[in-house]
Amino acid sequence: MTTRGLLIGRFQPFHNGHARLVREIVDAVDELVFGIGSAGDSHTITNPFTAGERIMMATKSIESMPVDTTVYTVPIEDLNRNAVWVSHVESISPRFDIAYSNNPLVIQLFTEAGVEVRQTPMFDRDVLKGTEIRRRMIEGSDWQSKVPDAVCEIVDEIDGIERIQRLSR
Amino acid sequence: MTTRGLLIGRFQPFHNGHARLVREIVDAVDELVFGIGSAGDSHTITNPFTAGERIMMATKSIESMPVDTTVYTVPIEDLNRNAVWVSHVESISPRFDIAYSNNPLVIQLFTEAGVEVRQTPMFDRDVLKGTEIRRRMIEGSDWQSKVPDAVCEIVDEIDGIERIQRLSR
Amino acid sequence: MTTRGLLIGRFQPFHNGHARLVREIVDAVDELVFGIGSAGDSHTITNPFTAGERIMMATKSIESMPVDTTVYTVPIEDLNRNAVWVSHVESISPRFDIAYSNNPLVIQLFTEAGVEVRQTPMFDRDVLKGTEIRRRMIEGSDWQSKVPDAVCEIVDEIDGIERIQRLSR
Amino acid sequence: MTTRGLLIGRFQPFHNGHARLVREIVDAVDELVFGIGSAGDSHTITNPFTAGERIMMATKSIESMPVDTTVYTVPIEDLNRNAVWVSHVESISPRFDIAYSNNPLVIQLFTEAGVEVRQTPMFDRDVLKGTEIRRRMIEGSDWQSKVPDAVCEIVDEIDGIERIQRLSR
Amino acid sequence: MTTRGLLIGRFQPFHNGHARLVREIVDAVDELVFGIGSAGDSHTITNPFTAGERIMMATKSIESMPVDTTVYTVPIEDLNRNAVWVSHVESISPRFDIAYSNNPLVIQLFTEAGVEVRQTPMFDRDVLKGTEIRRRMIEGSDWQSKVPDAVCEIVDEIDGIERIQRLSR
Amino acid sequence: MTTRGLLIGRFQPFHNGHARLVREIVDAVDELVFGIGSAGDSHTITNPFTAGERIMMATKSIESMPVDTTVYTVPIEDLNRNAVWVSHVESISPRFDIAYSNNPLVIQLFTEAGVEVRQTPMFDRDVLKGTEIRRRMIEGSDWQSKVPDAVCEIVDEIDGIERIQRLSR
Repeated sequence: MTTRGLLIGRFQPFHNGHARLVREIVDAVDELVFGIGSAGDSHTITNPFTAGERIMMATKSIESMPVDTTVYTVPIEDLNRNAVWVSHVESISPRFDIAYSNNPLVIQLFTEAGVEVRQTPMFDRDVLKGTEIRRRMIEGSDWQSKVPDAVCEIVDEIDGIERIQRLSR
Repeated sequence: MTTRGLLIGRFQPFHNGHARLVREIVDAVDELVFGIGSAGDSHTITNPFTAGERIMMATKSIESMPVDTTVYTVPIEDLNRNAVWVSHVESISPRFDIAYSNNPLVIQLFTEAGVEVRQTPMFDRDVLKGTEIRRRMIEGSDWQSKVPDAVCEIVDEIDGIERIQRLSR
Repeated sequence: MTTRGLLIGRFQPFHNGHARLVREIVDAVDELVFGIGSAGDSHTITNPFTAGERIMMATKSIESMPVDTTVYTVPIEDLNRNAVWVSHVESISPRFDIAYSNNPLVIQLFTEAGVEVRQTPMFDRDVLKGTEIRRRMIEGSDWQSKVPDAVCEIVDEIDGIERIQRLSR
Repeated sequence: MTTRGLLIGRFQPFHNGHARLVREIVDAVDELVFGIGSAGDSHTITNPFTAGERIMMATKSIESMPVDTTVYTVPIEDLNRNAVWVSHVESISPRFDIAYSNNPLVIQLFTEAGVEVRQTPMFDRDVLKGTEIRRRMIEGSDWQSKVPDAVCEIVDEIDGIERIQRLSR
Repeated sequence: MTTRGLLIGRFQPFHNGHARLVREIVDAVDELVFGIGSAGDSHTITNPFTAGERIMMATKSIESMPVDTTVYTVPIEDLNRNAVWVSHVESISPRFDIAYSNNPLVIQLFTEAGVEVRQTPMFDRDVLKGTEIRRRMIEGSDWQSKVPDAVCEIVDEIDGIERIQRLSR
Repeated sequence: MTTRGLLIGRFQPFHNGHARLVREIVDAVDELVFGIGSAGDSHTITNPFTAGERIMMATKSIESMPVDTTVYTVPIEDLNRNAVWVSHVESISPRFDIAYSNNPLVIQLFTEAGVEVRQTPMFDRDVLKGTEIRRRMIEGSDWQSKVPDAVCEIVDEIDGIERIQRLSR
């Protein structure tokens, strides 16, 4: 039977660490569900991009990678009810067997619900994390080399740097 | 520049009429956003399947079709505020240029927002519509020949017939 | 002390019956709160106009009437919790002493909360009611003579007839 | 280990059929969770009483019965997301082992979640159902003999008959 | 007529200070409504336990106390609208005459609504408060002696210590 | 055609800086929409007053000013979805041509939606801002000279100082 893995994150933005993670996970599962958390948030300093923009970033980046696996991108809105969050994710996502996360709350909620959770390796964590990349976007220093080319193009198309810089004032 | 079309429906379930529609639209656009409406609804007679189940139905069916186009599947929850619905769709979806729909409300809302709308052709409309297929599922007559094979497999895997039959009592 | 009256309705659209009602009420109170119910609803056959459009209709119509009274227009969103509805209205509205309504639910809720309710007279009720005026808008027969001139202008400006006719298909 | 049963209903109002059901269930379980559904609804013809009023009706009625079992009364608000409803109930209620219901949707949702469901016997179903008792309240015919004395007292205290009669106009 | 008191808190978890408070209040009123606030919150460091778990803690603890009074346990979800909060509580709770609280917001809201509020005495406040008990749970020092035995058993049954410790990482 | 300006703020409370701003804007536009943000918030230290109270403050203050312009006061509830916020405002407000704001998020959202935004001048900004006026209300020092007389009267009528002082404890 098909083994399906769920990778949950906010992906603000999708960066090279996520890309590498995807490559690792698709080796371990048959199909990947790419769950985009806090889907309703956008236009803030910590969540600058809309769910639609993040779906494009992930889809275009993964398309350019040597990955054959079926990948589902699923935006997941916050419910603000931790106790029903697993059901919420399960209802909006294709059925999955393994959840990938390093977030203590996510791990606890899936574990209580009987879902297998695997922690994910970190790659070059000083730079390859959303906070750092958004800081560089705001300050105008190099962020482009830390994300797939497709992400650069999308940020450019939506005037994303102007957006995050204005929001940071 | 990439032309992207948005096809919105509830897809309860995805059937051969939808499959044919997808084939027509991908000839006219570069990329297709497959918007699954009323994403939060499930387990009723008119909306038996969850968004996750419908994402699987659409993705698997389209994968088995001779379609190269990038297809995004996007679940869209109801907001119950018609006046903000277009913004809601735009925020959760990759940017699109054309919306495909025959629903008067959807046409009106997109038109007021300045989005181009194209009506979609109907194929064998007596049989190829959700109401009729769900009626057959409830009554136990042939629905399998009206949907792609992938949909049959998914309905089977989730015990979908038992679900809709029980709900109809 | 100032006596303030609250008139609650959906005003889809504001018509000559409402106008006459306003003239009666402003004789009995010092100030009028004009509460626009179901403020979040729009673009349906029974609720075609947005709250903003209805605020304009009421304000412009009352401005053209010989009324000196201070009039507050207050959009009131539905809460779908009858038991907290009075508090909801009281929090969004200037304090009021008397509520005007013929709706049994509204009367019951205000009465239980200890608010004085007065029923309102009806004027030429066969024609001067929202259902009838919307029917005429859809069918293309005379509705213009049943509403203040300001309402005609606003409906015209927003292409309101095209909207309701399309929604009715 | 303690066996706990969950009985879910709207209890608009609690009547002799419910009372008899409680007596049957407490023979089969160690503890009873009395789940009051649609807790946010009130002041309509089908849901005239608030959750607080229904908690009093149930608690007072069960107190007057020869029942030693611990009974928890738990108001359960509607979520309008069937797919997360079981989690919602589980989070707001003490843990339970068996759910009692005759409602096809409730049975289906608990069954899919792996919770044991038992159907409940019906007693004198022509009369002992909410619809019939509310009809009698509206028409002014005998409803008092169909509910526990405690319910009569509470309906009297809150002017419940006046409420439902006015709402029915 | 029955005098009913409402005690509102989050009870994360129910501890010996709450137990002593209950004993004091039941001397002053005929019946007690035990209102469990922020009922929808759980699985965070400040709100680790679900409403259902807290209902069990309170009910089991009070059952083991020499208290004859009828006690209603009522979970109360946050509304995030302070101005309607009193109505919300009143609709979900049996009618009450006196509210017990030391929270300035709760005192203000009930006072504006004309409900009598009584402040509650504090017992051994350095230790007997939720923050301190949760700190001890996280650090692994003695919390068991600060709560009723029933609470120990429930925390044990639900693996509550593992939950709060993981969430605190 | 009528030029309409939208001024958005929380107005906690309406003060002399707002009054002066209104006078400037009405020179530049034909009509003014006075948008009261965070309309659902009240009874906190940063948002002490309800939407209804703020509507009264603004209406009464503007009535006492030499302003002929039609002014609409529109309470705007938060949606917590930045990406649909502009649509939300547009649906609840009369159509407007220019938005006045100094808030970076508001500027960004309107700019992305193609609405012209003008920044507003600041007057005596050390004192004439909500934070400072609320601080004075809490501390009992002079705030009265910083707001229109109408605001003093309304704060007095609703016992507003007692409210904010109690909430600050």
